[in-house]
Amino acid sequence: MALASPAATPGDLRAAFDGSRALVTGGLGLIGSALARRLVELGASVTIIDASLPESGANLRNIESIRERVQLALVDVRCTDQLPELLRGHDYLFNLAAQVSHVASMSDPITDLDINCRAQLTLLEACRRVNPGAVIVFASTRQIYGRPEYLPVDERHPLCPVDVNGVNKMAGEAFHVVYSNAFGLKTSALRLTNTYGPGMRIKDARQTFVGIWLRNIIEGRPIEIWGGMQKRDFTYVEDVAEAFLLAATCPQAQAHAFNLGGDRVVSLLELAEMLIATNGAGQYLVRDFPEERQRIDIGDYYADDGQFRQLTGWRPRVTLERGLERTLAYFRANFHHYV
Amino acid sequence: MALASPAATPGDLRAAFDGSRALVTGGLGLIGSALARRLVELGASVTIIDASLPESGANLRNIESIRERVQLALVDVRCTDQLPELLRGHDYLFNLAAQVSHVASMSDPITDLDINCRAQLTLLEACRRVNPGAVIVFASTRQIYGRPEYLPVDERHPLCPVDVNGVNKMAGEAFHVVYSNAFGLKTSALRLTNTYGPGMRIKDARQTFVGIWLRNIIEGRPIEIWGGMQKRDFTYVEDVAEAFLLAATCPQAQAHAFNLGGDRVVSLLELAEMLIATNGAGQYLVRDFPEERQRIDIGDYYADDGQFRQLTGWRPRVTLERGLERTLAYFRANFHHYV
Repeated sequence: MALASPAATPGDLRAAFDGSRALVTGGLGLIGSALARRLVELGASVTIIDASLPESGANLRNIESIRERVQLALVDVRCTDQLPELLRGHDYLFNLAAQVSHVASMSDPITDLDINCRAQLTLLEACRRVNPGAVIVFASTRQIYGRPEYLPVDERHPLCPVDVNGVNKMAGEAFHVVYSNAFGLKTSALRLTNTYGPGMRIKDARQTFVGIWLRNIIEGRPIEIWGGMQKRDFTYVEDVAEAFLLAATCPQAQAHAFNLGGDRVVSLLELAEMLIATNGAGQYLVRDFPEERQRIDIGDYYADDGQFRQLTGWRPRVTLERGLERTLAYFRANFHHYV
Repeated sequence: MALASPAATPGDLRAAFDGSRALVTGGLGLIGSALARRLVELGASVTIIDASLPESGANLRNIESIRERVQLALVDVRCTDQLPELLRGHDYLFNLAAQVSHVASMSDPITDLDINCRAQLTLLEACRRVNPGAVIVFASTRQIYGRPEYLPVDERHPLCPVDVNGVNKMAGEAFHVVYSNAFGLKTSALRLTNTYGPGMRIKDARQTFVGIWLRNIIEGRPIEIWGGMQKRDFTYVEDVAEAFLLAATCPQAQAHAFNLGGDRVVSLLELAEMLIATNGAGQYLVRDFPEERQRIDIGDYYADDGQFRQLTGWRPRVTLERGLERTLAYFRANFHHYV
């Protein structure tokens, strides 16, 4: 792959998106809503598709600041009838609708497949028919690598998912690559690591453990850490949203999938300590892994995202400290909307 | 993975399968029927599940010699209601039901997904609930590698399927590995290359180009070769059936996927010449690739199947010459059952 593209500047993004029409599936969730807010800021006309499922990251509060400036379609990507009509005429499709719980994918694997795999193919097929010129960016995940064989994990690392969610996301991503190579669709994919930030699901641990940690710390309850020495990287949601915009405006990204990492690597214990320090108070308990989690845990993970940085000029702008600070401040002010 | 297991002998196979209950999905097809015949020979009580779809490799003629000695359920693996009842009590599940046409997977991708991906997950989930002790062997494919980056292709080669069929088979295989690691199911998978032999679909090119070549040569029409210099390996169907039996009886194979290759590597032109020589007459035409094929063609492929050979003692017993001879002889005698 050519890695020679100059980095996009904020001005490039405005030029690309001002006056454009962008569709965001899963647009009420953590990343989708941050992306929608940024797209509105850049002058795009934004349509959000979201099924608003109770077990998902969807929350209307996430788009409060742009509610009057976006079209909202409460549609499930599994229900295909309305998709072609919704896709028509859009310049960009940010494809983020997903079932994100690894544990849920093991207790209800078919629902995970229908959302993360089957609906992705339906969407691509609809695009191919009614809007083959749209630029598509898919939210993939580090989960498709499984337990890392080496660190940091680059895009050459074997794909060996440990749970049903990982298999379905791997297939969902691969469909995007196939549709680009075989049918010329302008697709790319970002393999996300832990994304956190204002607007995430904090009700429970379905959208990474960080969510439930935030809830517990705000409610004055101890954080429960399973294990604790696992190393991970974390990307602040606004940095992830920026990456989606950069991928969409970079033709060299098409037919490829890229890792996205964070600004640094920490253990879960270190993260807990940072969160408690940011909060000014709190405590944690270290617990053994519950068995159903142990079987699908991936151990240490952190990404080598050098390819994407070089290609697009992207890098995390928000440090982990600052991101945790902003996230905690947001949830303190908006707590009752999320629990 | 340990590679120390002694090779199984014919006696071992009889001991393993005599008196056992074996289920073969796709059991009316080329490989499934060969497996069913061999299982009956080894003393197993065999149930065949097959939807007998007109576009599949299913053909009742394939089980004529064992028709009175097997149970036949004309059931589609996509229709889940009857699966648990069918799975119950079986010691072995040979999971071969599939949509095999690469071109069809691009024109009707959802059907390919529902058979090769979704139905596989449904089947594993049913097994987990009603028959978690069954040994399961899945028919995977070289197609999941995509265009080889190096030759011969071993199991470490990156998975980069070029068509929807390859993506769905990759996911179908990965589900088998996940269910083994996470739930203890006794699954393994064989990544097949071109399988040929008596009983294959010769009506058209849906089940590899070899099928339509056989038909044309028997009907005295020229073989059409697209390209011609592509190198491939070919496994005779009885050797493939033996590999399934060996995988099923090898505990070290569980949670793994293995390549299966042939006795030698030939170009398509060489294969055409061998077929014509075996037939004693015939001709071929070399054509340019049709465009919809070109986009999903993988170029040269041949497998390094050393892992499976070392683990189980398997090797191809039927040479390409002898295999083509037997196949031609069979179709000359049974032509009208297959066209």
